[in-house]
Amino acid sequence: MRRICVVITARPSYSRIKAALDAIAAAPGLELHIVLAASALLDRFGNLQDVLRDDGFTPSARVFTVIEGDRPSTMVKTTGLGMIEMASVFEQLAPDVVVTIADRYETLATAAAAAYMNIPVTHIQGGEVTGSIDEKVRHAVTKLSNLHFVATETAADRVRRMGEPPESVFVTGCPSIDLAAAAAARPPITSRELFSRYGGVGPALDLEKPFLVVLQHPVTTEYDAARASITETIQAIHTLNMPTLWFWPNVDAGSDGTSKGLRVFREQHQPKHIHFFRNLLPMDFLRLLNQATGIVGNSSAAIRECSFLGTPAVNIGTRQQGRERGRNVVDVGYDRIEIIGAIERMIDGPRPARDTIYGDGAAGSRIASLLGRLPLNVEKRLAY
Amino acid sequence: MRRICVVITARPSYSRIKAALDAIAAAPGLELHIVLAASALLDRFGNLQDVLRDDGFTPSARVFTVIEGDRPSTMVKTTGLGMIEMASVFEQLAPDVVVTIADRYETLATAAAAAYMNIPVTHIQGGEVTGSIDEKVRHAVTKLSNLHFVATETAADRVRRMGEPPESVFVTGCPSIDLAAAAAARPPITSRELFSRYGGVGPALDLEKPFLVVLQHPVTTEYDAARASITETIQAIHTLNMPTLWFWPNVDAGSDGTSKGLRVFREQHQPKHIHFFRNLLPMDFLRLLNQATGIVGNSSAAIRECSFLGTPAVNIGTRQQGRERGRNVVDVGYDRIEIIGAIERMIDGPRPARDTIYGDGAAGSRIASLLGRLPLNVEKRLAY
Amino acid sequence: MRRICVVITARPSYSRIKAALDAIAAAPGLELHIVLAASALLDRFGNLQDVLRDDGFTPSARVFTVIEGDRPSTMVKTTGLGMIEMASVFEQLAPDVVVTIADRYETLATAAAAAYMNIPVTHIQGGEVTGSIDEKVRHAVTKLSNLHFVATETAADRVRRMGEPPESVFVTGCPSIDLAAAAAARPPITSRELFSRYGGVGPALDLEKPFLVVLQHPVTTEYDAARASITETIQAIHTLNMPTLWFWPNVDAGSDGTSKGLRVFREQHQPKHIHFFRNLLPMDFLRLLNQATGIVGNSSAAIRECSFLGTPAVNIGTRQQGRERGRNVVDVGYDRIEIIGAIERMIDGPRPARDTIYGDGAAGSRIASLLGRLPLNVEKRLAY
Amino acid sequence: MRRICVVITARPSYSRIKAALDAIAAAPGLELHIVLAASALLDRFGNLQDVLRDDGFTPSARVFTVIEGDRPSTMVKTTGLGMIEMASVFEQLAPDVVVTIADRYETLATAAAAAYMNIPVTHIQGGEVTGSIDEKVRHAVTKLSNLHFVATETAADRVRRMGEPPESVFVTGCPSIDLAAAAAARPPITSRELFSRYGGVGPALDLEKPFLVVLQHPVTTEYDAARASITETIQAIHTLNMPTLWFWPNVDAGSDGTSKGLRVFREQHQPKHIHFFRNLLPMDFLRLLNQATGIVGNSSAAIRECSFLGTPAVNIGTRQQGRERGRNVVDVGYDRIEIIGAIERMIDGPRPARDTIYGDGAAGSRIASLLGRLPLNVEKRLAY
Repeated sequence: MRRICVVITARPSYSRIKAALDAIAAAPGLELHIVLAASALLDRFGNLQDVLRDDGFTPSARVFTVIEGDRPSTMVKTTGLGMIEMASVFEQLAPDVVVTIADRYETLATAAAAAYMNIPVTHIQGGEVTGSIDEKVRHAVTKLSNLHFVATETAADRVRRMGEPPESVFVTGCPSIDLAAAAAARPPITSRELFSRYGGVGPALDLEKPFLVVLQHPVTTEYDAARASITETIQAIHTLNMPTLWFWPNVDAGSDGTSKGLRVFREQHQPKHIHFFRNLLPMDFLRLLNQATGIVGNSSAAIRECSFLGTPAVNIGTRQQGRERGRNVVDVGYDRIEIIGAIERMIDGPRPARDTIYGDGAAGSRIASLLGRLPLNVEKRLAY
Repeated sequence: MRRICVVITARPSYSRIKAALDAIAAAPGLELHIVLAASALLDRFGNLQDVLRDDGFTPSARVFTVIEGDRPSTMVKTTGLGMIEMASVFEQLAPDVVVTIADRYETLATAAAAAYMNIPVTHIQGGEVTGSIDEKVRHAVTKLSNLHFVATETAADRVRRMGEPPESVFVTGCPSIDLAAAAAARPPITSRELFSRYGGVGPALDLEKPFLVVLQHPVTTEYDAARASITETIQAIHTLNMPTLWFWPNVDAGSDGTSKGLRVFREQHQPKHIHFFRNLLPMDFLRLLNQATGIVGNSSAAIRECSFLGTPAVNIGTRQQGRERGRNVVDVGYDRIEIIGAIERMIDGPRPARDTIYGDGAAGSRIASLLGRLPLNVEKRLAY
Repeated sequence: MRRICVVITARPSYSRIKAALDAIAAAPGLELHIVLAASALLDRFGNLQDVLRDDGFTPSARVFTVIEGDRPSTMVKTTGLGMIEMASVFEQLAPDVVVTIADRYETLATAAAAAYMNIPVTHIQGGEVTGSIDEKVRHAVTKLSNLHFVATETAADRVRRMGEPPESVFVTGCPSIDLAAAAAARPPITSRELFSRYGGVGPALDLEKPFLVVLQHPVTTEYDAARASITETIQAIHTLNMPTLWFWPNVDAGSDGTSKGLRVFREQHQPKHIHFFRNLLPMDFLRLLNQATGIVGNSSAAIRECSFLGTPAVNIGTRQQGRERGRNVVDVGYDRIEIIGAIERMIDGPRPARDTIYGDGAAGSRIASLLGRLPLNVEKRLAY
Repeated sequence: MRRICVVITARPSYSRIKAALDAIAAAPGLELHIVLAASALLDRFGNLQDVLRDDGFTPSARVFTVIEGDRPSTMVKTTGLGMIEMASVFEQLAPDVVVTIADRYETLATAAAAAYMNIPVTHIQGGEVTGSIDEKVRHAVTKLSNLHFVATETAADRVRRMGEPPESVFVTGCPSIDLAAAAAARPPITSRELFSRYGGVGPALDLEKPFLVVLQHPVTTEYDAARASITETIQAIHTLNMPTLWFWPNVDAGSDGTSKGLRVFREQHQPKHIHFFRNLLPMDFLRLLNQATGIVGNSSAAIRECSFLGTPAVNIGTRQQGRERGRNVVDVGYDRIEIIGAIERMIDGPRPARDTIYGDGAAGSRIASLLGRLPLNVEKRLAY
């Protein structure tokens, strides 16, 4: 029986692993332990605890590590506290392998803690290219990891070129695409379903008519510019005056600038065509993306899940720079004119065809199968 | 004026940076800040504070981070506490660039703290290959760093292949070779000088006759085997019965096994031909290596400085696996017979010629010059 | 020159020390260092940074220590992190004396850090009795402190009876009363002034007509009951339908229950007679209390400043249990009927006379004078 | 079933609780959880793990918290880290009551963590008076605690006078006296038994002839003076030239001064009449005290256990100042002449009679019984 410990530190990571969790939990030779940590436990970033419970999972440990302040130095200290806490958790759980997801700054704590404790580390979603601090974190985690389950062929190629042993790199596809596939198979979400389930702030909108989804996160290393960036998007959406579902951003240094911009706008304009949400259940969010006219902002969902769904995306700024794109993505700068133009073309254009660059919908079972049968070692060396 | 913050976390790292510190301190456009942290402040690992003072340096900050216990989990927590503390130090010093050295586990705290705080990171001595946890740490630090000052052409090649932008990689040589060159230019250290200055435990030996230097560290991921490994070396040296200077190992998970083996041997046998030391001043250690018949164990000094000095080395086990070797090195396993044979051949053989693979003795000034003139950025992307 | 280091960890503490800060800053032999820590730095609890700047103070250090989660265990960890950080701050500032205020849980970090580092500790506002965890913290801080500047004669008596040397206990009065005296000397705050300066949520109210101020904090050791308690108050105020200014509570384990109750009420009822605020400048808050018909909830301002101002107070529940009361206070339970009755009697009754039990308005200068001339020792023993 | 969590942070605390642990483990309605933390886990301070195992106990958690450096600031940080770790342990164990022992600085972490988490705290050995930082810690822990099991009537009186509710204060006697009573009932320890079991450094001594036991700890707030103080004792013992068993001190800021003094003396003089030990099993140490001619230094064992055993004690300096003394104790200053005189009189004088001021040997069962039947509350108020 292999003990698989999956550490989830933020709500978006849950979508990126959910299908694998289901498969691990169902696999006869695997014992699943979920650790919830960092912003995954906090209401203001979309507390995952209820979601997990509803999905039938019970976390083996919960680790509160976010030091408030939304500053670069508190990011560091949150990660440091995360290492201190994670070492205790790993001592207690004694996993055979630790799984860490993607590239948020606090995932370095997971990978380093496991590596130092001689526990093999499996990294989901390495080998991608984005820029900003995520870029450094992602590749540092790759170098601390022993197994790499990547989303795309290009990512696999990068991980191998970084010197990881080729036999440790697997193109599983991203488990989030498994969810997208499931969402696409379900009926559209109705207005009544959406607004009664999630509340939010603003008027109820008619989801049978065209509508936009907006989700724009602050970009870590552009701390001071967060407010200016969001303002361009706000003004563009304000001008277009089209039904819009706007989602609050995640925690990050700079979230204050972004949130402040959104709050001031909402109080000043009390816009009639925008409804604000904090978080949806992942499945509902994907169903919504599937039926949206398009998505605007800098969410990775626009690049990844929407490529599979064929939902057009206007991607703003540098946050997704370097990520592979399907045919559904148009890139624009932090400029309201550019943003408006791209959205208008998106509305008028044909719906793009599906892409499977990020996965074919079977990533979860591939991951569970690999975790069950691959040899687990902690030693490794550069392949060159 | 550029503020250069060099973080030193262990005594061996000091030798690897000393020549650069001298050059940075002397450079007109650079302001040097030294941060002492982790085992660099602790008596039992060779407290650097007096050494620094004698060398004319005053640390800008001292950061106590070592959580006692010598266990993998305390290594993690020491690193986590290091991140928490280092964030405060960097906020206070506000450096333009942070310099981190080599690959000890706690250096990840330095690199991650600086990277998360958008301070460019310069890594000294990346691109090497050794195995064990150092291997993961070293390359993870590379991925968190913006400038790479490496010791060898091979190392530079590896760093570039890992995707670091070629314009960020420089073969400066290792500053420790600068010290070795200076040591080789000085007269041999006399017995009186050595034993009166450092005391130690055991009889005084005659340094004008052939003698061995032994230094063997525990290997982190082979925690339980530390005691068995050191016993082979102890038995080999005991059998050879040749004048020997034995140095205690650094801190690391597993140091107990090694130290215990040494202590038990010393108490049982009270060997007449071995003198035990904790630490020498780097310059004296190098002078000693220069005049030694050979060095035995798994110290990197045997591979690096001794290649330049032409001092023969019997390298035991896996700790230096993968490091480039000069003509001075013979590798053996944890086996007393093998060790004895290699030492006997070393004693009988000719002294090897000097190698400059790890540097030509001018690394310090090269590093200071580069830190003064290179552009300092925090953003980077994979070169492929 | 004595270096006086005052650690402020929450917005309410600032009012309790402001008058002393002014006096210390003005005293010729004293050098004032302010450390901002914990919730004093966080927007959601009334970030003090702008307030300090506007008052002409520059903090010598800022220490982010609040670990998000609003749980008892995160309170512990916040305090532990506070100790780690505060030790660094005290090493850097090297104060001759550390001043800590009142009884919030994180003040134990300040007092213990200073005591362990052999820095004399001055405690402001010891010797009071309230119940809940504050009670334990307050008296523990007393036992870690060397000087006690208390608000009332009764408090002084208690501190002496706890075994503190009588010559270390001084009835200075509470500096917050100095502010209240200043506020009472100023003209009433106008509606325009209030709502244009602070915004908030809800309709603008006419401050020339009778109005209530409500401020109710969760009670730490009644974590689960927070939501139930606030609901009684909400229903009472809802029933009375009188113009009301409602202030959000501070951070504390349980704040979620209280905040949730308030949010749900606001969204469901969108009350027309209530305006919600986060924080006012202390002076404006005191001016408002001075002109309010009465104050409702469990704020200590109702007990302390309002006794001096002669503002009637309906004090709900156990939070202020044990505190000395002036003639202005009526106590009720968590019961909407009781609350309504008490408020109605308060509205109909005469305005109470001023009490000086908590100070006469000269506490600040007394404290500065004592800090300048008292001997500073760290040793102490029980007086019996 | 009540879950009793006893936190042990140092070897000396184990003797102070052992008899209670036995009784709790044997009590039908109690479930014993032992947490080992801080120096209790470290070899250089007498690792308790083997002792516990040999006594039949298995710790429920082990918490490494000692940050190396032996400085006041690392004492603070060790305590802060202890809070962080202890919160996790208490969340996991969910005890009904936490038991903390005596007054070492890190015990504040235990008491504060439990108090903040609304777990009733039982304090063993409050109400005593000593001076130094222990004094502050002890009484602060009293104020954080709900039940007080004290050693003497005088201590009980002090705890009540500090305002603790009289019904929460119990004179149980100190469990260490239970051990002393058991030790006194056993045959003397033989030289062979002692030296073969514990090794140590120095010649074997004849325990059938008169011998001294020396144990002198550094005094925290006299950091710089530690070396000077120990030197007086060393010189006195050196002059007396009588068979002596010398025990190394515990961890504390200043331990370096004391240890250094001892090491230098030992290396210079290689005394023939002194044998140095690190730690004995508590039972063996007590048997040794029972048969010793006398004890010298500042150990609390001299004051407490030796009062019951009737072993004469020369108590040096301020460390035990304020503790109640039996007839066996003579106090002297840090002065070799005074120390010599007192030891000579001790050798020549009659053996003092037994005192039961610190207990009658039944403390353990009393404590277990009280923990089983007392109501457990977290709320408390000053009794005045």
